[in-house]
Amino acid sequence: MKLQTLKGFRDFLATEAIRRRLVVEKIQEIFERYGFDPLETPALEYAETLLGKYGSEADKLLYTFKDNGGRLVGLRYDQTVPLSRVVAQYPDLPRPFKRYQIQPVWRAENTQKGRFREFLQCDIDTIGTNSPQADAEIIAATIEAVRALGISDSKMLINDRTILDDLGLSKKEIITLDKLAKIGKEGVLSEWQKLGRENAEELFNKVQQTQPTSRLKTIFESLEALGFTRDKDFTFTPSLARGLEYYTSTIFELQSEKYAGGSLAGGGRYDKLIGSFSGIDTPAVGIAFGFDRILDALNEQGLLPDIKTRTQILVTTFSKELDVSAFAITSKFRDSGIATDIAFADIKLDKQLKYADKKGIPYVVIQGPDEEKRGVVKLKNMKTQSQEELTVEQVIDKLKEN
Amino acid sequence: MKLQTLKGFRDFLATEAIRRRLVVEKIQEIFERYGFDPLETPALEYAETLLGKYGSEADKLLYTFKDNGGRLVGLRYDQTVPLSRVVAQYPDLPRPFKRYQIQPVWRAENTQKGRFREFLQCDIDTIGTNSPQADAEIIAATIEAVRALGISDSKMLINDRTILDDLGLSKKEIITLDKLAKIGKEGVLSEWQKLGRENAEELFNKVQQTQPTSRLKTIFESLEALGFTRDKDFTFTPSLARGLEYYTSTIFELQSEKYAGGSLAGGGRYDKLIGSFSGIDTPAVGIAFGFDRILDALNEQGLLPDIKTRTQILVTTFSKELDVSAFAITSKFRDSGIATDIAFADIKLDKQLKYADKKGIPYVVIQGPDEEKRGVVKLKNMKTQSQEELTVEQVIDKLKEN
Repeated sequence: MKLQTLKGFRDFLATEAIRRRLVVEKIQEIFERYGFDPLETPALEYAETLLGKYGSEADKLLYTFKDNGGRLVGLRYDQTVPLSRVVAQYPDLPRPFKRYQIQPVWRAENTQKGRFREFLQCDIDTIGTNSPQADAEIIAATIEAVRALGISDSKMLINDRTILDDLGLSKKEIITLDKLAKIGKEGVLSEWQKLGRENAEELFNKVQQTQPTSRLKTIFESLEALGFTRDKDFTFTPSLARGLEYYTSTIFELQSEKYAGGSLAGGGRYDKLIGSFSGIDTPAVGIAFGFDRILDALNEQGLLPDIKTRTQILVTTFSKELDVSAFAITSKFRDSGIATDIAFADIKLDKQLKYADKKGIPYVVIQGPDEEKRGVVKLKNMKTQSQEELTVEQVIDKLKEN
Repeated sequence: MKLQTLKGFRDFLATEAIRRRLVVEKIQEIFERYGFDPLETPALEYAETLLGKYGSEADKLLYTFKDNGGRLVGLRYDQTVPLSRVVAQYPDLPRPFKRYQIQPVWRAENTQKGRFREFLQCDIDTIGTNSPQADAEIIAATIEAVRALGISDSKMLINDRTILDDLGLSKKEIITLDKLAKIGKEGVLSEWQKLGRENAEELFNKVQQTQPTSRLKTIFESLEALGFTRDKDFTFTPSLARGLEYYTSTIFELQSEKYAGGSLAGGGRYDKLIGSFSGIDTPAVGIAFGFDRILDALNEQGLLPDIKTRTQILVTTFSKELDVSAFAITSKFRDSGIATDIAFADIKLDKQLKYADKKGIPYVVIQGPDEEKRGVVKLKNMKTQSQEELTVEQVIDKLKEN
């Protein structure tokens, strides 16, 4: 048996698993507050469903294989294509169809820092309406979710691809423009020149000076009506390009000034994509959260709890004779909703305390024969090492206060 | 693009997705209350880690394939083998190591009613102690989790494999005994005779009349100390056998009398399994929940909410002129923590109401120009079709009461 994780894959234990859960729960809560409902799709799809949707480079990163029945199948690569399949497969869904989806995806990427072969995607999409207000809702839910996590300086950069199209930028020039933050204006100009563009600087300045489209104006008004402030919470960024080819108008990207690792979320309107799969014209807008980057940013800003366990208290067992009492105390804590672990008398008391320490449990209860007779326990705070004598009910009150 | 789900795989939409989430959340809550911490392992492992662990029949059901780097990899088949790998890979884990894990597993089963190729497993295991009290804790957490979901007649059948071993039953005879509920006493006796057993009935009666081992007695005392009642919440069942070969002593299975679809959870002590992988002697006890069966049982007993959405209210937009007001109302609801959807004036009001109806949203807010002037809204209950005029704050109070 290979006793290790595959390269590019991760186990999440203790602190790591708890932090991820907390972040997912908070994001879910905000998605639901914005009227998005959950969707789960299977890990495996017909390979045919996945291939040719992401471009030929991406196709190489798909995990595809023949199953026992000889079907060519593939692991989920993103959540947009499975969503498109769902929309086509269930024609009776309410329209607009607003769903969120939080599931792992798999990509056979080269392993490098911060790039994984299995990672969580958090998406919201609204299918079946081309209303600019639907774009505003996606943007608002995203800002709110990331703010709710504590990243207060996050700001949504917003643009409309039609601005770039109307100024005559080619697909390749748009993709180059997406690298502006990385390679700077000079870098963009030099690449545009290589692509054969004359007067590159003039074009660049035109891009910078352009005004928002009427779609963008409506989006900005909607965001303001929802309580967001222009240039603080969101901003018109005419040089924003986004890498993906399939966007048709609105595009957006959430940035945090304090976080240098790239955008925290990105998306836009893709009115042609679902139709190209299903043959039925289906406007759509959505965003994908960079879950690992968000965790990274939260971590850098000290916004994640540094706990190793959700267990609040360990009940020790002083001796075999006190087994029953230890279990009874444990049961009282649990009935009060307190996450409680118990250690047994088959290991010595000092080892029971070491276990609590190693596991990161903040409180320990000790009851010797004398305390048992008097109906009390000793409560030990593992951080301060202070001890006090209390009844079980007093311990419950104390823990519930925290 | 294939516009359908692979056979044996499922999409979870609306009601289905919401119900699954509720059940998972409740189970997690109880697992944590019992001091278990979350663990997540990757979907893919080295095939070598998985092969040969489940028996040759099961090996055929593994999804294995060569990845782009030429490694033979496989999809998670259960959570016990990945757990064993984790225990071996991270020798510094606290002992006992108590973890819960709720993730999908994949098996290339023949598709038939109630059997899926991707399904959720919910496991708790305690690694590194052979204390019978650890067995009691696993049993207690399981009873409590299923009770918390509302299945009040659930009862844990408990036995000790050493009883069957000591009475001289062979592995094959034990596996046959596991079919008792299905094939009856006569069926077991006839199969035992085919296996060459003389005096099969005498042996069967011996099994039935045997007394609990000292390990079981300690477990029963512990369960009573935790507040559970013998023969109501749990019961000694000397004919309980469990199908898997790797159990070494305690075995248990949760049954609900009202549910005919089989046991809701099953597990036991497997003190040799992890050692056989890792070379390090590691006692362990655990249980796996049959998530789909639990959902099934809950459904049969009407214990799952019949809701299609978690959205509580839809704010309609009467006309373009009232866009800003509709967004402002929406924002107030959301700030109060109410899950709120908004429909836009690009579709007519009656279609907006139909959308609420189709999506299953219980309340709708309507505000025409007259209401807007007077600072009120109409609140429509979609079930009763009744309407009342309220301020936004009154609507919030009303929804918060629910």
